[in-house]
Amino acid sequence: MDEWIFKSLCAMTYGLYVVSSCDGEKLNGQITNTVFQVTADPARVAVGVNKKNLTHDYIEKTGRFSVSVLKQETPMLFIGLFGFKSGRDINKFEKTGYKKYESGVPFLLENSLAAMEITVEQSVDLGTHTLFIGSVVKGEKISDGPALTYDYYHNVMKGKTQKNATTYNVETSS
Amino acid sequence: MDEWIFKSLCAMTYGLYVVSSCDGEKLNGQITNTVFQVTADPARVAVGVNKKNLTHDYIEKTGRFSVSVLKQETPMLFIGLFGFKSGRDINKFEKTGYKKYESGVPFLLENSLAAMEITVEQSVDLGTHTLFIGSVVKGEKISDGPALTYDYYHNVMKGKTQKNATTYNVETSS
Repeated sequence: MDEWIFKSLCAMTYGLYVVSSCDGEKLNGQITNTVFQVTADPARVAVGVNKKNLTHDYIEKTGRFSVSVLKQETPMLFIGLFGFKSGRDINKFEKTGYKKYESGVPFLLENSLAAMEITVEQSVDLGTHTLFIGSVVKGEKISDGPALTYDYYHNVMKGKTQKNATTYNVETSS
Repeated sequence: MDEWIFKSLCAMTYGLYVVSSCDGEKLNGQITNTVFQVTADPARVAVGVNKKNLTHDYIEKTGRFSVSVLKQETPMLFIGLFGFKSGRDINKFEKTGYKKYESGVPFLLENSLAAMEITVEQSVDLGTHTLFIGSVVKGEKISDGPALTYDYYHNVMKGKTQKNATTYNVETSS
């Protein structure tokens, strides 16, 4: 990637979220920064998910997912579990406080400010990733406090970006 | 909008940007918070634009736009000009420092940390808004410092949200 494109993209602001989905009784979730509201009427959000991720398979199959908004105090261990491990190898929800929507989709009770359930309306193929766009059908307030931002994660917590992320930008020229 | 959906959406994190476009010599730009990177290879961003906005007409016609990342010290007067006035009534660039890409698309030299030029690859119809998705073909570093976030704009600068925004969430029940 061109050095200046890299630097421009790095100036942008994001939050950090866990996107969760299920396939019957099998639950999974992953960290992402690419969640954003795209319309207000109706309330719709979009999320970008790497096609290699188990979360992608589940959302594609069921057309449903949840978004949990992470709080600033989220421990690095938790981010490691949901951001750097695959749900193909472990059950990420085994030691995590969560509830399920009626649909079976889980959402976090720990490290979370708020959660919402989304039903997919459109899937946009972007090569490495799919952008799932859907209506917010449920909302939950979980706790109070500041949200975890991508900036705080990188600059205060000194966290890294997983290679399947939409914003895994490698500077190839200088 | 349901109270809990409203509260969940409000917990999300955004930056603030000016999306600019042109139609020949006519230039226009508007404030938005809905800009985000959707893939890294190639570098692609998406932006949600209200169909009523002049920027929407220009991007739809030319397939090109720029994104300027606003800096934290951006004055309220500037946000008022680009966020609450229509380019149908005034020339927003008349008293603003800017440059043009070879394509003619302008980008900001003031109140900006970085800028990028994007060519549209896909347009997703979302009713009130279109989500334009495209490749980043140019990047510019303009200045150093922290970015203006939506949270800072609302809670420190006490700014409001324009009614055509993707995140103009009105709480209808309580």
